[in-house]
Amino acid sequence: MSQAVLDTLARAQTVFVASHLDPDADALGSTLGLMHLLEAQGKKVTVYSAGPIPEDLDFLPGRARITDTAPNPRAFDLGVLLDCHQPDRAGEAARNFMGDFKATAVIDHHEGEAAFGQAVWIAPDYAATAEMITTLAQKYNWQFTKDAALCLFAGLQGDTGSFCYSNTTARSLYTGGYLIEKGADPWLVSQEVYATRPNKIRLLALVMEKARTYVNGKLIIAGLTLSDIDGLGASPEDLEDVAEALRLIRGVSVSAFVKERRNGTVKASLRSRGAVNVAEVALDLGGGGHHNAAGLTLESTLDEALSILESRLAPLVKAT
Amino acid sequence: MSQAVLDTLARAQTVFVASHLDPDADALGSTLGLMHLLEAQGKKVTVYSAGPIPEDLDFLPGRARITDTAPNPRAFDLGVLLDCHQPDRAGEAARNFMGDFKATAVIDHHEGEAAFGQAVWIAPDYAATAEMITTLAQKYNWQFTKDAALCLFAGLQGDTGSFCYSNTTARSLYTGGYLIEKGADPWLVSQEVYATRPNKIRLLALVMEKARTYVNGKLIIAGLTLSDIDGLGASPEDLEDVAEALRLIRGVSVSAFVKERRNGTVKASLRSRGAVNVAEVALDLGGGGHHNAAGLTLESTLDEALSILESRLAPLVKAT
Repeated sequence: MSQAVLDTLARAQTVFVASHLDPDADALGSTLGLMHLLEAQGKKVTVYSAGPIPEDLDFLPGRARITDTAPNPRAFDLGVLLDCHQPDRAGEAARNFMGDFKATAVIDHHEGEAAFGQAVWIAPDYAATAEMITTLAQKYNWQFTKDAALCLFAGLQGDTGSFCYSNTTARSLYTGGYLIEKGADPWLVSQEVYATRPNKIRLLALVMEKARTYVNGKLIIAGLTLSDIDGLGASPEDLEDVAEALRLIRGVSVSAFVKERRNGTVKASLRSRGAVNVAEVALDLGGGGHHNAAGLTLESTLDEALSILESRLAPLVKAT
Repeated sequence: MSQAVLDTLARAQTVFVASHLDPDADALGSTLGLMHLLEAQGKKVTVYSAGPIPEDLDFLPGRARITDTAPNPRAFDLGVLLDCHQPDRAGEAARNFMGDFKATAVIDHHEGEAAFGQAVWIAPDYAATAEMITTLAQKYNWQFTKDAALCLFAGLQGDTGSFCYSNTTARSLYTGGYLIEKGADPWLVSQEVYATRPNKIRLLALVMEKARTYVNGKLIIAGLTLSDIDGLGASPEDLEDVAEALRLIRGVSVSAFVKERRNGTVKASLRSRGAVNVAEVALDLGGGGHHNAAGLTLESTLDEALSILESRLAPLVKAT
């Protein structure tokens, strides 16, 4: 698999690289990391991202090179899709232009349906797309630059939660070690990525005040109203981490975070750290997700949503 | 160096292992990790810790084996001191009995004065004592158990801040990868070690409320009174991380956290993430520490301490 991708990359002199919308450290780190690696081989590279890019990632070397202008596919030997495997994940425009490249390649660690593209490497046993790219570079002895190593390390660190999440394998750490040898500075990356916004601390404190625990503290459910959220000036990024933060509380095995939305619905994020499959609960209520992390939207008041979730989750937690 | 320690360990059949007071993940992870490794070789091992052990570390396999009873040194072939290199670091009792073993060994990654003991391996270029023990075990092909791998991984993860701190090297990650191969589960360790106490979130929120920023947010100083601390029911562990949490706020290069103490003094913890050497400021005020992390005690009111620190730190931050 990786051989086909490698051959395709080796042949191309002008390369276009795109990743998914709402990019995280792995999407952008992989994109910019691959750019630096290919440029060190004398190729010309254009990197593309259609939507807004989180401020947290401004430190990635080459960040200023990212364009949101749709390319002329005929001007490139190859179009590469990273950290996703369907063109529409890269945005409305990409859905149209990605098919027009002379050749296309995909490198992604997400599971899913058959991928778009000629040379495809999809490997869900890798913790990050950055881990896949580094493995490729390592195997074929590509010349590294410090910038390439830093971008790829940031991607690997991001998608493994700094080597904490359950997707972390021995290979993830060996790959991280290799990137440090090639010049990545873990301290620099972690300072940027884990920098805290004061608003987020205030948000978590309010969430803790509102949270109720059940089943001897094994289940925790918290909800915020629109006015809570507006009052704190919390950003979408701040809110995204709340369900995760609740799961991290000592003794908790299932957490739910529910927020009021402007359109009159409420959005719930469920997390499990053990036997309870929260995807089943979410699915049953019209949502979806994985065993450990799922979400759903309800057309109800916040209080109704909180009691629906309690009545669904408490028996499951009790049974474990 | 490691050869002398290895030879000493190889000769001994009954081994006593101690680490420092107020043990952290590296102190206990190294102690229990070495115990599991030596026991897999058929040796008899006693593990000792004089003081209280943080609840966070109860998950370490073998935790229940730790004793606070002073040993009879004549009953052992060897006494080993880990993660420190002077007997008094292991407590009042250890100061007396450590010298009475037939043979003694030290494995430590802290810098310092000449060590006690016959076989001594002090290596400050290692991020953790657990990294040293794993390297030793790896080099001499010791048989691993899953429990040994988990304990040593916890130590390595603890002292590197999950491979984030500036002491993290390529070897730290390679060592972590090796321990995962031998059965360590990073997800299990991180869930235990990074579990949050709700009180800590409330504490951080109050600290943020009280904090003042200077020099365009590059300097942040916060102080808590005794009644603030008592009101929150914050534990010493919660308080320990506050200066670190302040340094992690976006844009901050120097942080100071000051707390009132029951004996009428105030204790300040200083952190720097860049050019400012906070040890110099601490030294000048009767304290000490490192470039990036230092502390001091003042016989003053909280408000006086806050303004002294502002007057010392602001010009330094401004000059960078």
